[in-house]
Amino acid sequence: MKAKVHITLKRGVLDPQGKAVAHSLASLGFAGVTEVRQGKFIEIDLAETDPAKARTKLDEMCRKLLANTVIEDYAIELA
Amino acid sequence: MKAKVHITLKRGVLDPQGKAVAHSLASLGFAGVTEVRQGKFIEIDLAETDPAKARTKLDEMCRKLLANTVIEDYAIELA
Repeated sequence: MKAKVHITLKRGVLDPQGKAVAHSLASLGFAGVTEVRQGKFIEIDLAETDPAKARTKLDEMCRKLLANTVIEDYAIELA
Repeated sequence: MKAKVHITLKRGVLDPQGKAVAHSLASLGFAGVTEVRQGKFIEIDLAETDPAKARTKLDEMCRKLLANTVIEDYAIELA
């Protein structure tokens, strides 16, 4: 079973990496870029075939390793 | 107009960051993780309101700055 996990900074948390990208885009002549936020995208292949069990496992993976839940949100999508 | 851009390593390109995550998950006791691939997820707010023009602009942004098209693929999603 394949899963896609998005890890994004919570609203209100400063994103210097996103700011740098926005600044670079402006330097390259791209006008009208009002905000850029950069996050992580993780694709995980699991041996687990039960969607409910897979989701529980992925949720635990996010909380224990993949995301820093103090400043980051995560979203799990099963394919 | 909001856009979501996924940047992922092309199939066949070695992903040491993904391998490290897979190894860490195994160390934490998560069994059955067969593969992990890590990419980037970028959210961009554009002043542009025409979807076709926005897509053209985003495509150019990806090719010029956001993705390294030699080793990475990108996917643009307009919201």
